[in-house]
Amino acid sequence: MRVTWFNGGIVDGAIALDPRDRGLLLGDGVFETLLVTGGKAQWLDRHFARMGNAAAELGIAFDGGNIGKAATDLARKAKDISVLRITLTRGVAARGLGSDGQSPSLLMSLDAFDPALMFQAASLMTSKIRRNERAPSSRLKTLSYIDGVMAVREVRGRADDALMLNTAGKAASATIANVFLLKGKSLATPSLDQGVLPGIMRGLVLEHAAKLGYAVVEGIIEPEDLLAADVVFLTNSLRVIRPVTHLDGRMLAQNGLEDLIAEMKPRLMERMS
Amino acid sequence: MRVTWFNGGIVDGAIALDPRDRGLLLGDGVFETLLVTGGKAQWLDRHFARMGNAAAELGIAFDGGNIGKAATDLARKAKDISVLRITLTRGVAARGLGSDGQSPSLLMSLDAFDPALMFQAASLMTSKIRRNERAPSSRLKTLSYIDGVMAVREVRGRADDALMLNTAGKAASATIANVFLLKGKSLATPSLDQGVLPGIMRGLVLEHAAKLGYAVVEGIIEPEDLLAADVVFLTNSLRVIRPVTHLDGRMLAQNGLEDLIAEMKPRLMERMS
Repeated sequence: MRVTWFNGGIVDGAIALDPRDRGLLLGDGVFETLLVTGGKAQWLDRHFARMGNAAAELGIAFDGGNIGKAATDLARKAKDISVLRITLTRGVAARGLGSDGQSPSLLMSLDAFDPALMFQAASLMTSKIRRNERAPSSRLKTLSYIDGVMAVREVRGRADDALMLNTAGKAASATIANVFLLKGKSLATPSLDQGVLPGIMRGLVLEHAAKLGYAVVEGIIEPEDLLAADVVFLTNSLRVIRPVTHLDGRMLAQNGLEDLIAEMKPRLMERMS
Repeated sequence: MRVTWFNGGIVDGAIALDPRDRGLLLGDGVFETLLVTGGKAQWLDRHFARMGNAAAELGIAFDGGNIGKAATDLARKAKDISVLRITLTRGVAARGLGSDGQSPSLLMSLDAFDPALMFQAASLMTSKIRRNERAPSSRLKTLSYIDGVMAVREVRGRADDALMLNTAGKAASATIANVFLLKGKSLATPSLDQGVLPGIMRGLVLEHAAKLGYAVVEGIIEPEDLLAADVVFLTNSLRVIRPVTHLDGRMLAQNGLEDLIAEMKPRLMERMS
């Protein structure tokens, strides 16, 4: 079952979009993708803090109270585990990249989500496309997602997702997930200055791992480090923890994976009904 | 006067867009912006060749014959000098970045364009945001334009456009224009591997300059080279040639600018009625 909400109400079929909307014309907007369980959007406060920060950095009007209420109402309609996507555009602006927008468009959709995907393993291939740590957009969840689209198309049929390096050749992330490396009791992930989105699940994993006694490191990660890790895994708000089985066709170790998931899963899922 | 055409016909007001359209959700599409004079879209063949190449690289269906006919018909409605924007999205796809699209959306708009802008001077400030020459999207005119949007906002109120360097610190382009440096009879512009869009006007200027006896160089350009040039100018399909008067608050030379424009203008405008 798919539900669409646009600018104030549920919509069947197409939405009535102003053809000057900058979200469509220039990828000029932000979005969030939330896991919905028990009719409740998970980690809503964290998603809204991130979205509000991104909107502020872009100069897009963000009415957190109203958007939050609409999102909460819509999530309540979900009968099963679902994904809620919230898209906020700059709205209509005069021609010219620098123009301020009016009437931001708010689009929300609710789609079924298969919970079997939440801890499903994945293979990675390294993309030739680099994430640009020299652009602040690499840390913002904007609608301008073409590099991720192209990276996934590049590895399609050979791997489940692409590992993207940054322009300095260091590991950054997958196209829709952060990457973590476990080695003994040390858990490492690329720092945000490496061209990385501040994933909600990334933040949760870092916090819980620290509480569980892991040595948590955010920093520079060489691509070769992935081959030497005990476990490599991906995180995002929907797929939670995805163990990485292969990188560029080479099998990765999975030493201690079961213990890690056994420790982390109840903490990451604690608020879910 | 503004005219909108969407998926087969003229539309008043809003367009009926599928809320799953990847153009809106992921900046997953391409566009072209054409100058219209005398009811005719200028350099239509070149714009379509570029758009077709970009669509092919992205795996987006491109029906050049039908799009060309619709664009030609729409341009004919323009009473005055206008700008025709053609936007083509991937259309609707299953969730997941790598999914193929169905039913690409084709949006075209016709807006008035003030011909006084065509050779208007501009000031530049260097943006902190780098163009990513390590991503093929830097050479494609896609809907994912957020870095340009952010760069213009960064310099807004201080300059007319942003000069963007690439991740290696070399000059790339402005946000919506290519950059050229004239020094004596040598005309230089960053090569496409520097993270540069293959501008239609860029190509025309290079061709005509070569015929006029200029030594034409596409290569690596240091930002400092702009300060030492006889003339720095920007090109795009609408603003044709924009002399750059200031870079980061420093006044640039304009030695030989009038001669250059006197030589180039009739050739660049020759097909216009």
